[in-house]
Amino acid sequence: MEHIQCDKKKVCIFGSGNFGSCLADHLADAVHDVLLWSRDTEVIEALNSTHMHPYCHKDHVFPEGIRAVGPEMLSTEALREMDVLLFAVPTEGLRETLTKLKPTIDQILKFDEDGEVKSPVFIFVNKGIESKSNALTLEIVAEAVGKEVARAAAFLSGPSFATEIIRRQPTNVSVSSLSQSHAQQAADLFHQPWFRCYTGTDPIGVELAGALKNVYAIAAGCAEGLGYENNTRAGLVTRALAEMSRIGTAYGANPLTFLTLAGVGDLFLTCSSKTSRNFTVGYRLGKGEKLDDILRTLGSVAEGVATAKGAKMMIDKLGINAPIAQGVYGVLYEGVEAEAQARWLMERPAVAEIDLSCDVGIAAKELLAKLGL
Amino acid sequence: MEHIQCDKKKVCIFGSGNFGSCLADHLADAVHDVLLWSRDTEVIEALNSTHMHPYCHKDHVFPEGIRAVGPEMLSTEALREMDVLLFAVPTEGLRETLTKLKPTIDQILKFDEDGEVKSPVFIFVNKGIESKSNALTLEIVAEAVGKEVARAAAFLSGPSFATEIIRRQPTNVSVSSLSQSHAQQAADLFHQPWFRCYTGTDPIGVELAGALKNVYAIAAGCAEGLGYENNTRAGLVTRALAEMSRIGTAYGANPLTFLTLAGVGDLFLTCSSKTSRNFTVGYRLGKGEKLDDILRTLGSVAEGVATAKGAKMMIDKLGINAPIAQGVYGVLYEGVEAEAQARWLMERPAVAEIDLSCDVGIAAKELLAKLGL
Repeated sequence: MEHIQCDKKKVCIFGSGNFGSCLADHLADAVHDVLLWSRDTEVIEALNSTHMHPYCHKDHVFPEGIRAVGPEMLSTEALREMDVLLFAVPTEGLRETLTKLKPTIDQILKFDEDGEVKSPVFIFVNKGIESKSNALTLEIVAEAVGKEVARAAAFLSGPSFATEIIRRQPTNVSVSSLSQSHAQQAADLFHQPWFRCYTGTDPIGVELAGALKNVYAIAAGCAEGLGYENNTRAGLVTRALAEMSRIGTAYGANPLTFLTLAGVGDLFLTCSSKTSRNFTVGYRLGKGEKLDDILRTLGSVAEGVATAKGAKMMIDKLGINAPIAQGVYGVLYEGVEAEAQARWLMERPAVAEIDLSCDVGIAAKELLAKLGL
Repeated sequence: MEHIQCDKKKVCIFGSGNFGSCLADHLADAVHDVLLWSRDTEVIEALNSTHMHPYCHKDHVFPEGIRAVGPEMLSTEALREMDVLLFAVPTEGLRETLTKLKPTIDQILKFDEDGEVKSPVFIFVNKGIESKSNALTLEIVAEAVGKEVARAAAFLSGPSFATEIIRRQPTNVSVSSLSQSHAQQAADLFHQPWFRCYTGTDPIGVELAGALKNVYAIAAGCAEGLGYENNTRAGLVTRALAEMSRIGTAYGANPLTFLTLAGVGDLFLTCSSKTSRNFTVGYRLGKGEKLDDILRTLGSVAEGVATAKGAKMMIDKLGINAPIAQGVYGVLYEGVEAEAQARWLMERPAVAEIDLSCDVGIAAKELLAKLGL
């Protein structure tokens, strides 16, 4: 398949992990000049000499348009030339990274006549909430580098395993920003026939969905560990989506955002991928293991374990009906057995499924009238 | 797990196939008296003598509370005693079944003071649209037995493989009726800790979702046949949901219905089940086989193949943007190769993801104000 022709941009990517390096690959492959910022000298040397990554996407040869640099090699002058700054660092480390960059960012920002940031374009691809503050990335950005940057920032999210992106498997993502024009600029940068970008203007909803899905992946894993099958998983994902929409709405997000790639798309991917860390934590809980034992032997971070705490605080504070998230919290932190929790979930009384905030439409009324109903 | 205590009802189930017999099992197990109407004398004899079904759920012993009867054994008097009539016959045969029953139904209907049907409760569990008319079940019911019955009819749908229901795997379904009280009565009949019923009042949306999902299952199968993986499937399901919502909205359904168990839940199940007939048709098309060859050797009906025609008529008539459904039609009926169709889908320009018909909520405004955004 042919590339879509696009303007060549200079992009600096902060973070050379699994996802940052696959996006570097995608953008450089599509013609852009990519500067890949890494803290790891081994990654820098390997990428610059052999175009291979020592830890991620191991057999892959990266395009020559990628140049890797360390923190000390990145001058204000080099950053001033950039059209795009893309952050692919974990949410827990983002505030520190941004705070260190703040003096430089202040020097390179260009504004339009309305006082809005014109360049560079800021893109964030991390997911999850900051554990100590429960802050979304939008909040971290506003607090660390200012509201002008937050207002222009674009957030990329959706069902996108890095291992599949790097093999050009067709992938679809949401790109959301409070500024529609910045969402469009970010989308245009990435958009290719094998990487379709859909724009939106609800970054809060996109970020909440990206964080909360990990809590529900733990629930899906639990169900699998308890021996439940397809009906249960599909039902759980659906009720999880209803909960996410309720939490999101209470938090001020647009409920329709949960119908997007960043919402249901990523939830679908996470809850049907048996190899994900969050799913694995849930699966082992469902099999009766203790959380401490699981975390000690997991060998990596399962973000949903921390997010479940933040979600519980949000739910209790806003008085939201979210029994699955409550149930995950109970199993993780209150010593409730997964099976007892599942029974509690199932034994609740029957209720109406969804708050139907809009009436049925005109065409339905016509059909019903035609049938005399 | 204990049963939820409920009033013992007399239920007549029309149709003794895979789904009808599993619902008979569920209802009789939960205390109800079940009359199972079947056209197959072998099924009737086996169920009444050995409590086994000769073709479906073969190793399962059905409860003694089920009595199987043939069409000629079902008198008006017997039907008059029934609290519930449940139809589990294929959509294609429903009009004929109802038309034959019309004289009897007319005799047994009881009305309340407002002229609404009070008893029996009518429940329909078939999915799909009638191929020659494109009619939904609600339309078939209104035309065959009258608008009073259609107004009271409840429709059960959602992610519910019969083989899992019969093993008491936790299952969640939508029960929808234009009459909220009838939806609730139907839900109360079925509701158990392992079979949770959620009520709604948008049967048109529920039925459209149940029909259209089969078209998208063909698309998901195609993608698998073409070698596409998790990112693609999750993206496809999400965009399918957006299309279903658009078609539904144009048809007058409530777009939020597509967020329910009957919507996204059943779509999730169907598109992630590699053994379903519709998925298989798509998979073999993706591998380059011709439709005629596939249908000749499939050995059973794949409803999505017919529904794709009805969907295409709806889409063209209402001018709806539904490229995936158009693509499935192209592969099925216009000789377009699956790979070319996938390329066409992916090469369309980037667009906004979703029509956001409601503004962001109050809490988001507060958060944005707090951040100065």
